[in-house]
Amino acid sequence: MSFSPLTSRLIEALTCLPGVGPKSAQRMALHLLDRDRNGGEKLAQTLQLAMDNIGRCQRCRNFSESEVCQTCTQTSRDASLLCVVETPADVIALDQSGGFRGYYFLLLGHLSPIDGIGPEEIGAPLLDQRLAEGEVKEMVIATGTTVEGEATAHYLSEMARRHGVVASRIAHGVPMGGDLEYVDSNTLSLALKGRKRLE
Amino acid sequence: MSFSPLTSRLIEALTCLPGVGPKSAQRMALHLLDRDRNGGEKLAQTLQLAMDNIGRCQRCRNFSESEVCQTCTQTSRDASLLCVVETPADVIALDQSGGFRGYYFLLLGHLSPIDGIGPEEIGAPLLDQRLAEGEVKEMVIATGTTVEGEATAHYLSEMARRHGVVASRIAHGVPMGGDLEYVDSNTLSLALKGRKRLE
Ligand SMILES: [Zn+2]
Ligand SMILES: [Zn+2]
Repeated sequence: MSFSPLTSRLIEALTCLPGVGPKSAQRMALHLLDRDRNGGEKLAQTLQLAMDNIGRCQRCRNFSESEVCQTCTQTSRDASLLCVVETPADVIALDQSGGFRGYYFLLLGHLSPIDGIGPEEIGAPLLDQRLAEGEVKEMVIATGTTVEGEATAHYLSEMARRHGVVASRIAHGVPMGGDLEYVDSNTLSLALKGRKRLE
Repeated sequence: MSFSPLTSRLIEALTCLPGVGPKSAQRMALHLLDRDRNGGEKLAQTLQLAMDNIGRCQRCRNFSESEVCQTCTQTSRDASLLCVVETPADVIALDQSGGFRGYYFLLLGHLSPIDGIGPEEIGAPLLDQRLAEGEVKEMVIATGTTVEGEATAHYLSEMARRHGVVASRIAHGVPMGGDLEYVDSNTLSLALKGRKRLE
C-alpha cells in the first residue's frame, strides 16, 4: 500500500525544495491536501508564474520579472557607489542594514576554477562595461569571506584599478567563513562603515 | 529594497508549507529560481493537478484521485479485518510494518469536543454503515495514544459492540503520547500482534 499515484507524485515533486526530504515532503503534501487547499492552489499558480516570468535584471543580474529591476531604476540612489555581492539574499541583507545607498551588482556566485566558474560566469564582462560608463567612483566588494570570496575580491579590485575606480572591501564584523545573509543588520552596517580601500 | 514583486509573492506563497518560515521560504524561492527551474515547473504543475483532482475515497476516506482508492479495491486483503486510524500517514506506517493485511478506515482526526470535532467529523456514520454490511468481524483500533485518541477508541469500541464486531486495540510497543507515523515497522508489527480485545 502506498499513497495514491498523484499524492506520491506530489510528495516526490516537493523534494525539489532545498532541505526537504521524503518525510517532510509527505508531511507537506498531507497538510496541503487536508488543511490548506487554497494555499496549495495559490502556491501552484504563483510558482508557475514565477518560473515562467522571472529572469535576470540586465543591469545588476538580480532576479526580476522586468528587464531592469526596481532597485536599478531607483533614482534616489548614489550612482557613484556600486556594491558587488554574490547572491540576491546578500542584496536584501545589506540594504536592510541601512549602511549602503548605492547600486548593486550580483556575481551569482564567486570565482571557482575547479567548478568551471570563471569571469564569464560571474558576469565580469557586464561589470567591466558598467565601470567603463564612468559613473561609478567606488566599488564596494561584499563577496563572502571564504577563500573563493577573497580570491574573487582580489580579481574585482584589479578590474576596478584598470578603470581608475576605488575598490573597497566590507570589513569589520563579518565573521570569517560566514554567509552575509545570516549576519545581523547592525554588524553589516558596521562592516560597511569600516570598509577598507584595497591597494 | 526588496525582492521583485513576483519573487516576494513566491516567497510568501511558500510559507503555506508546514515548518516553512520567511527565511526558509526565501532560501527555497532563490534555489528554484537560480538552480532548479525544471523542478519548480514540475512542482507547480503537480501541485495544481493534486489540488484539483485529489479527493476522498468514498469507502475509507483516504486521499484519492479516484472515487474508491487503490487499497480499497485490492481483493487480496482480508475483508473481515478493518483497521481504524487517524491519518493517511498512519495507513502507510501500518501497512509498511507488514503486520496488517485487512482494510483501513480513516477518521482524519480524533474526537475533540472542545474543537467541535464530533462523530460526524470523524466519519462515524460511514463507519457505522460499513460495519452494518456485516463483512467486518474485527475492528482494529489504531488511534493515537493521546487522551483524545483513547477517548475515540472507546467511542469506536462501543460502535463495534452494537454491530457484534470484535473491537481490538493495538498495544505493545507504541509509546504513550507518540505519533504512529514515527514508530518503526518492527514495533508497529509487534503492536499489531499484541492487540487486545476491548471488553
Ligand atoms: Zn537591477
Ligand atoms: Zn479507500
